Amino acid sequence: MKFATLPNGTPDGQLHLVSRDLTRATAAKDVATMQALIENWEALAPALEAQYSALNAGGGEAFDMTQALAPLPRAWQWLDGSAYESHGDLMQKVFKMDPVPKGRPLMYQGMSHEFLPATADVPFPSEADGIDIEGEFGIICDAVPMGTDAQTTQSHIRLLVQINDWSLRTIAPVEMKTGFGWVQAKPACSVAPVAVTPDELGDAWRDARVDLPLKVDLNDTHFGAAEGYHMAFGFDELIAHAAKTRKLVAGTIIGSGTVSNENFREIGSSCIAERRGIEMLDTGAPVTPYMSFGDRVKMECSARDGAPIFGAISQTVVAQS
Amino acid sequence: MKFATLPNGTPDGQLHLVSRDLTRATAAKDVATMQALIENWEALAPALEAQYSALNAGGGEAFDMTQALAPLPRAWQWLDGSAYESHGDLMQKVFKMDPVPKGRPLMYQGMSHEFLPATADVPFPSEADGIDIEGEFGIICDAVPMGTDAQTTQSHIRLLVQINDWSLRTIAPVEMKTGFGWVQAKPACSVAPVAVTPDELGDAWRDARVDLPLKVDLNDTHFGAAEGYHMAFGFDELIAHAAKTRKLVAGTIIGSGTVSNENFREIGSSCIAERRGIEMLDTGAPVTPYMSFGDRVKMECSARDGAPIFGAISQTVVAQS
Repeated sequence: MKFATLPNGTPDGQLHLVSRDLTRATAAKDVATMQALIENWEALAPALEAQYSALNAGGGEAFDMTQALAPLPRAWQWLDGSAYESHGDLMQKVFKMDPVPKGRPLMYQGMSHEFLPATADVPFPSEADGIDIEGEFGIICDAVPMGTDAQTTQSHIRLLVQINDWSLRTIAPVEMKTGFGWVQAKPACSVAPVAVTPDELGDAWRDARVDLPLKVDLNDTHFGAAEGYHMAFGFDELIAHAAKTRKLVAGTIIGSGTVSNENFREIGSSCIAERRGIEMLDTGAPVTPYMSFGDRVKMECSARDGAPIFGAISQTVVAQS
Repeated sequence: MKFATLPNGTPDGQLHLVSRDLTRATAAKDVATMQALIENWEALAPALEAQYSALNAGGGEAFDMTQALAPLPRAWQWLDGSAYESHGDLMQKVFKMDPVPKGRPLMYQGMSHEFLPATADVPFPSEADGIDIEGEFGIICDAVPMGTDAQTTQSHIRLLVQINDWSLRTIAPVEMKTGFGWVQAKPACSVAPVAVTPDELGDAWRDARVDLPLKVDLNDTHFGAAEGYHMAFGFDELIAHAAKTRKLVAGTIIGSGTVSNENFREIGSSCIAERRGIEMLDTGAPVTPYMSFGDRVKMECSARDGAPIFGAISQTVVAQS
């Protein structure tokens, strides 16, 4: 199934089913919000499956994804991994950080009270903060008991999402050095308009990973198309890591971290910091600037045959007024 | 005003006014939840003030604080500071961490989807994780626009709370070293049963700080009574720090960090890690163990004349089943 949330004047919006080709949508019958669905998935999904089949056969209304909110406009929990080692290794090298031991997922707790719509302008206080993107995949899980192991967690993955984890690079290393993680460096993320059940990816949902490239354009110029599969830990393992000492609330979103591949010089990057890191290694100094007000980012993940999946993130950075 | 949340079968419970002496309570008129109050404070407070006056004059029902949920049982955002430098300095010395530059508040984003009731047993997966307490004060603020400065933030402080930030010390340094902050090391916090408006503290609310001691007992033995005033940054500054690059959602909780004073050898500590740190400095090795299943903690902050304020946190650590 594919879902979007359309505005209805409430913070959580109205849950909609979206046709597989993303052209049509219809309000989910008897389910007001994405959060309500995730809290009661087993009971609500069968009727929605039937409604989804009917929608794909025809009917519904035209789906205008520029109107969509984030699929889950606010969440009780957002935990972001950093599961692509080629990204982490490069960042450590460039910023001369102590190497982080392998074998244990990296994860931080992020702000979850607001996820920005995929096409809204994104306000920041200052260009001097080093405004950067991080293209990611994510999952939305239902309630996970404390101590659930990675063999069991995959059944809790209800939806897949595509995320832009906005990052402020001038502040990030200052906060990282404290060991406390990020507050100022990680404001609200943006999310592509459509959340999909894992089966919508077919064979491209593999080992609890999205086996598809994430295409990133900056100001209409190709910036990267890294493959999502190359996570050192799958989402099953990221969930188990998160649930080690806490229960996860239904509607917890867990991110993959910036999609990155070892051949980043050929395939490009999903964040500017990574490209700047490559430039520093290759020439001694970064060349690509961080974003300025007015700059645009587009991020989209399509099926290998070009069929749309999540819709696109397509945003402009603006000055906070 | 003083508030508690009593269970009514919903995750957010029913908001109650509590008499100044904490003996009686009555359901808040026309306000279902703490979150609803915080979202619309200006409009709702006058009627509640009248109801509170009436309650203090008599009436209501007996208030059984062992029945109370956390005042805000779940929040959209929980940001915890570390504003007592005597604590931070000691921890850095003991754990041989790089000193953190002064002049900038320390803060991490914590899990906010569950705050435990003050008298509930607290389940943990393993005693080997180094189960520890952190006695703190906190504020609950209403919506704060991005970029609000510290001169303006104090008007956004609607309520004060008293918190136990449960911490797992074996995991904490492993997560800190990554720079990503804590996930596994910081499960759900507990909160004292009663949240109070700052005016309830009278002169003891000073410079956006709680000028009162936080008494901590472990297994019925006095452990510490550090004074709350000695924050390097007041809550006004902590809010401004948090709101630098994001707007704060109404109902954001911000913590002071472990209450600690420079004369910790005399006055005691609000967490076991600090006492162990002192022991390591003084004798080369920690002596005081972290908590075992069955161990009990009590934390309470009273007025100088002994009058109750927040009620007590009084909990037993148990094995997660």
